[in-house]
Amino acid sequence: MATKETQKLILETSIKLFNESGTRHVSTNRIAEACGLSKGNLHYHFKNKESVIQSIFELMARDIEKNWNDDYLQPTAEHMAEMFYRQLKMIWDYRFFYRELTPLLQKDQLLKDRFCNLRKKRVVEVEKFFKALIAEGFLVGLDDPEVLSSLITIGWIISDYWISFIDIEDKEINKATIKEGYLLMVQSLVPYLTDEARENVDKSFSLLSESND
Amino acid sequence: MATKETQKLILETSIKLFNESGTRHVSTNRIAEACGLSKGNLHYHFKNKESVIQSIFELMARDIEKNWNDDYLQPTAEHMAEMFYRQLKMIWDYRFFYRELTPLLQKDQLLKDRFCNLRKKRVVEVEKFFKALIAEGFLVGLDDPEVLSSLITIGWIISDYWISFIDIEDKEINKATIKEGYLLMVQSLVPYLTDEARENVDKSFSLLSESND
Repeated sequence: MATKETQKLILETSIKLFNESGTRHVSTNRIAEACGLSKGNLHYHFKNKESVIQSIFELMARDIEKNWNDDYLQPTAEHMAEMFYRQLKMIWDYRFFYRELTPLLQKDQLLKDRFCNLRKKRVVEVEKFFKALIAEGFLVGLDDPEVLSSLITIGWIISDYWISFIDIEDKEINKATIKEGYLLMVQSLVPYLTDEARENVDKSFSLLSESND
Repeated sequence: MATKETQKLILETSIKLFNESGTRHVSTNRIAEACGLSKGNLHYHFKNKESVIQSIFELMARDIEKNWNDDYLQPTAEHMAEMFYRQLKMIWDYRFFYRELTPLLQKDQLLKDRFCNLRKKRVVEVEKFFKALIAEGFLVGLDDPEVLSSLITIGWIISDYWISFIDIEDKEINKATIKEGYLLMVQSLVPYLTDEARENVDKSFSLLSESND
């Protein structure tokens, strides 16, 4: 196998195993075995488990940085639903990462810095999107920039920690619990959404969920 | 020293050291040293670091179970402010616990079960309090029980994870950042609070903060 293909196989297998069992219970040896590779071959590509996790985060970051930066050009209900959907899809696809967010970042300063920088950039983009929604009359009563900033932070906290929150109750993490996360994220915005907008966001979100089941 | 006094000293010293350095960087030997006790004496009282942390959580739980269950009898702005304040004070006093919430609970199933049970009981109490606020006309437009339940969950997530959230940005955890947490918790309720109620909650919260500085 070419280097790129091998690395892709290792990362995809790792994501699957981490999602199933958590990073603590998956050794690089187990990853190598599941890939049908020798330990030496795996370590040729990735020095240790930490560097596998860093590379997985780079996959997420690349997707975000490539595809998520033009939101403000589409200030519509459909696009808002799509933003919620892709956020929750990312949390689902990489659920081990959000489930273990705090310990993973505490253990790895490099990963923490990278995560933090990406978040700061994203906050700016999301603010731009919300300001476009306000300009379109899609969100009302949100003229105070501090209130807007608080609402964005609230949505962020729900999105980043929803998985950790339900994990404590030993609820299963599945598509239904992820949908509950969506409802919370929308709920914090409901007082500022026109009824029509709320309906359209919900409808678009349902369509996205169904077509991707 | 009597057993009770020694245990109190050990727990208070541990809280201080954990808050300063995080549980990972504080060994039971260091706790013993800071208490002026021999290692043997400390281990006579607490088998290991895990049991120290469990006992610290019992301190928190005892305070909550003893003092927090009559909220619904006082559906006022003053009491709402007091509830936010005591919640944030607990997060401040035991900031290591909230900062490391996910890893601590992941490592200790007993602690996780205890934390989860207490949370379930508290959710019921907080719902009772909010229903009393609605009956008093203090919260308006909250007749849908699902919306009420979502708002309580949103407040819970903000409260439990605010510290983890700002920790990622390497912001210092201090009284000002804790106050920011209050503002987020209130923000999610603002659309349902009358202007007068909001003002009174803010005023009462400021008074509490100042008198306890």
